[in-house]
Amino acid sequence: MKYSKLFGKTSVGEQKGSGMISHQLLIRGGFIRESTAGRYFFLPLGWRVHEKMRAIIKEEMDGTGAQEMITPVLHPLELWQETNRTNTAGFELMKVKDRRGAEFALGGTAEEMFVDVVRKFQVTYKDLPFNVYQFSTKFRDELRARGGLLRVREFVMKDAYSFHADQADFEREYEVMSQTYSRIFERLGLEAIKTEAGNGYIGGEYSHEYQSPCESGEDTIFVVPSTGKAYNREIAPARAQAVSYREEIAEKEDVLGEGIIGVDELAAFLKIPVEKTTKTILFKADGKRVIAAAVRGGYEISEEKLKKVVGAETLELADEKTVRELTGAEVGYAGLLNLSDLVEVFVDESCDNRVNFEMGANKTNYHTINVNWDRDIKKPETFYDFKLAKEGDVNPETNEAYKIVQSIEVGNIFQLGYHYSDLMKGATFIDRDGKAKPYYMGCYGIGLGRTLATIVEKYHDDKGIVWPDHLAPYKVHLVSLKGAEEQAEKIYRQLEEAHVEVLWDDRDVSPGVKFADADLLGTPIRLVASTRNGEQVEWKRRNEENSEVISMEEVLKRI
Amino acid sequence: MKYSKLFGKTSVGEQKGSGMISHQLLIRGGFIRESTAGRYFFLPLGWRVHEKMRAIIKEEMDGTGAQEMITPVLHPLELWQETNRTNTAGFELMKVKDRRGAEFALGGTAEEMFVDVVRKFQVTYKDLPFNVYQFSTKFRDELRARGGLLRVREFVMKDAYSFHADQADFEREYEVMSQTYSRIFERLGLEAIKTEAGNGYIGGEYSHEYQSPCESGEDTIFVVPSTGKAYNREIAPARAQAVSYREEIAEKEDVLGEGIIGVDELAAFLKIPVEKTTKTILFKADGKRVIAAAVRGGYEISEEKLKKVVGAETLELADEKTVRELTGAEVGYAGLLNLSDLVEVFVDESCDNRVNFEMGANKTNYHTINVNWDRDIKKPETFYDFKLAKEGDVNPETNEAYKIVQSIEVGNIFQLGYHYSDLMKGATFIDRDGKAKPYYMGCYGIGLGRTLATIVEKYHDDKGIVWPDHLAPYKVHLVSLKGAEEQAEKIYRQLEEAHVEVLWDDRDVSPGVKFADADLLGTPIRLVASTRNGEQVEWKRRNEENSEVISMEEVLKRI
Repeated sequence: MKYSKLFGKTSVGEQKGSGMISHQLLIRGGFIRESTAGRYFFLPLGWRVHEKMRAIIKEEMDGTGAQEMITPVLHPLELWQETNRTNTAGFELMKVKDRRGAEFALGGTAEEMFVDVVRKFQVTYKDLPFNVYQFSTKFRDELRARGGLLRVREFVMKDAYSFHADQADFEREYEVMSQTYSRIFERLGLEAIKTEAGNGYIGGEYSHEYQSPCESGEDTIFVVPSTGKAYNREIAPARAQAVSYREEIAEKEDVLGEGIIGVDELAAFLKIPVEKTTKTILFKADGKRVIAAAVRGGYEISEEKLKKVVGAETLELADEKTVRELTGAEVGYAGLLNLSDLVEVFVDESCDNRVNFEMGANKTNYHTINVNWDRDIKKPETFYDFKLAKEGDVNPETNEAYKIVQSIEVGNIFQLGYHYSDLMKGATFIDRDGKAKPYYMGCYGIGLGRTLATIVEKYHDDKGIVWPDHLAPYKVHLVSLKGAEEQAEKIYRQLEEAHVEVLWDDRDVSPGVKFADADLLGTPIRLVASTRNGEQVEWKRRNEENSEVISMEEVLKRI
Repeated sequence: MKYSKLFGKTSVGEQKGSGMISHQLLIRGGFIRESTAGRYFFLPLGWRVHEKMRAIIKEEMDGTGAQEMITPVLHPLELWQETNRTNTAGFELMKVKDRRGAEFALGGTAEEMFVDVVRKFQVTYKDLPFNVYQFSTKFRDELRARGGLLRVREFVMKDAYSFHADQADFEREYEVMSQTYSRIFERLGLEAIKTEAGNGYIGGEYSHEYQSPCESGEDTIFVVPSTGKAYNREIAPARAQAVSYREEIAEKEDVLGEGIIGVDELAAFLKIPVEKTTKTILFKADGKRVIAAAVRGGYEISEEKLKKVVGAETLELADEKTVRELTGAEVGYAGLLNLSDLVEVFVDESCDNRVNFEMGANKTNYHTINVNWDRDIKKPETFYDFKLAKEGDVNPETNEAYKIVQSIEVGNIFQLGYHYSDLMKGATFIDRDGKAKPYYMGCYGIGLGRTLATIVEKYHDDKGIVWPDHLAPYKVHLVSLKGAEEQAEKIYRQLEEAHVEVLWDDRDVSPGVKFADADLLGTPIRLVASTRNGEQVEWKRRNEENSEVISMEEVLKRI
């Protein structure tokens, strides 16, 4: 390809509003361009990288016996209603009506669609197991798109769905997929830490994320130093650092603190450490039970963990009316003292081992201080762990403080179990005994654009991108200096005949511009044709400092 | 691949509501499955064919220097407003709003998007020409989906867009694309007749369709026998077959024919041949001029041709109020007699050479008979040609009657000229003289699903599909008979090691079922492993009657 005719050349100037270097370099290099916020054109250079990634993922998936297919982009909305996901989906679903009035969801993930196509067939135990996947455009109505390709509203995802006769067979496949993902990310040049995670709106009981360490990543994972076991923040089991105060037990007291709600503000107002405050929040579990969950000031509640503790499918904040009825106060003053019997109480272990602590008074504008377990309120028989882990927290199994790693989620694998086959009618197979039974499922995703950006986050220097060899859009970047056009043409033809992917910067611009652009684009090998070198050519690898002048035979031999 | 584990097996029973054999065979073979009307799952077998087609198209496009990239699926609606296409698009555009209220069109074609990404760059004459293309899902809100993959609401299209400094350079590329399309369809095993066509809602001045002859196709093309030149029906220049009656000139007369509007009904009522009736229709051209267009009974008006004749960008039927004001009658009784001077009159040549003909009387419920040119109304100085051609019509250049061919449109190429660069702000390049000028454009499409169905329409027999070798999902269909499982396993491994795509029907079903399924799936080579043949194997090509028993060495040699 001649660079003069390539659509999407380099440009200068910083992308506003993004601190991510991958965003800057991909835009400046002419790999991508924004259409509207969170929706990108992949220009020819960027698309070549994207498609090389796709080929690697496909090769690894096919190698396991998984079968590629494709579902329509528009999903009948009835399917999402069948699984109650039109509202619970963590991303907002985009919906569209056609002119006959039929309603569709723009696919954000495709569990329902795959179950739907499978149930159109009379599947028996002989057909199972199988794993079907697609590469398709996914839509997420993100409130805020950011970080270039890292959080977008439209992207290509490889999503796979496996169907099994029983749990044991699923577990075998889950392990196969786990190893396949490790191989895929290794081939893509990324470290990817297999991280325990929650299932969120996808459903099912457990899942793992593949988190690639990156200082500017927006995820935080918690790694156990001695074992390397990793958890995402939402589910990391955590013991709070102990806080103890040598002090006398003091008199319990209700303090007027009008409109003071946040724990930091409250601690400052009461002149007590934040750890002495208590955050009590009321939830409705599964739309029925009312739950009070209390954590120590300075912690947040992980709804993912709390759901498991209380044994609920869904949790939502209790509405104001419920809070008023059951605490006797406006929202913001809930505590565990004098709480209605209708409320089930769960206390995080961070609330243990404290004296003279604070709690909402269940009285509008009032906070109770110097609360002490057993004297003022019965100490809970069990303390739980449903806080969002934070730096300094300890893994309860090994008693080590977690290592905190910033990272980017590049893939995930989910156990779905019977979640979808229970909710969707006719999602069954005929077993050996002739009976219809629900299938056991898993699903497995990789976002290609985000992974591409993560690769750039890792492979760059201050001059531009430094692509891993097999992902670079071209293998050779040929620069012709003034007067050496004929020589360059010859080299270009030689490389093309040898089926070497070559980008020839044949423009009439200064050598400085050409060299800077070559570094920005990050092609692994740079060749320079100049009158000084005669028939020979200058060879330089993008990731090395030194260049050599060698013959074309030597070039072809090395490639 | 073992057939037992393939997702998407054969099924029996006819697809209701579709007479297309491709629809029947693709469904029954397990290549595709309907999601909702006009939206299809491509199952693993079907997707393999689809992707082989994609690879051929990509190879040919890349060979011309065209560059693959991708645009977002959701197009900012502003872009379609910029070119006035939100209403004029021939298909209904699907629109969607995100939760911030931003409006998008679901891409049905991508001229605006490509111009938009190109104008984001400062393109100069040095960058031109280039041709950029994508394979992407397109959406058409068709009122009626039909014929399986032939008319759908969602499909993958290869759409390319070329940008040029001037018309001459575009014409060079148009010829390159024309030859590329011929090569692509040849490689796909299809005859594709390059057919002159109109530009419709795409804009521009001329275009060509690639029409593949198919008896059950929904298009009709008109071919000049001696030259082979082909036209689609909307634009075929046509001279009507002469009708002449030896008869005396009769007295003009207004006849009451209440509510009689259609020409067949009218001819029967008046007891005259249909050719003596005249169909006069009032249009608004470009929203301003009012046009009366008259054709002989038995013909329809081609709006595409009429637009060119009257020199208008848009044509729409005149509203009832306008008709009433300018003809003095309700809709259905318009004629050329006593018509308001505000109406411009255009008469098709089919109305010439008649005596004692009929016309609407411009009086509700009345028809004038025995009208004669010059006696009753001035004979037009010019007769035009704006009728939809029909069987028996003559090509005016060669004076031959057209050959009528039923066909399926599998691709098209359009001259766009300055249509988009004039309408869209900043769609310019900097020319040698330093001035910003609009670029000259073309666009080029191929619908993959429809082409796939067309291939099946051509390549099948009464037992099933007969895939061309290089498009078949697998090259070899291995059938193992009872007792020969071990031998089959060995053959299967040998073929896989030799990188031969093989589908092994390893099911425990009768030989009859296996053979029927092999024929239905249409794999080019069928191998049968049976105890009778020992180490040898039965070889049969799908498109031949006879089988042979040969050794595996011979099999591998032949493949």
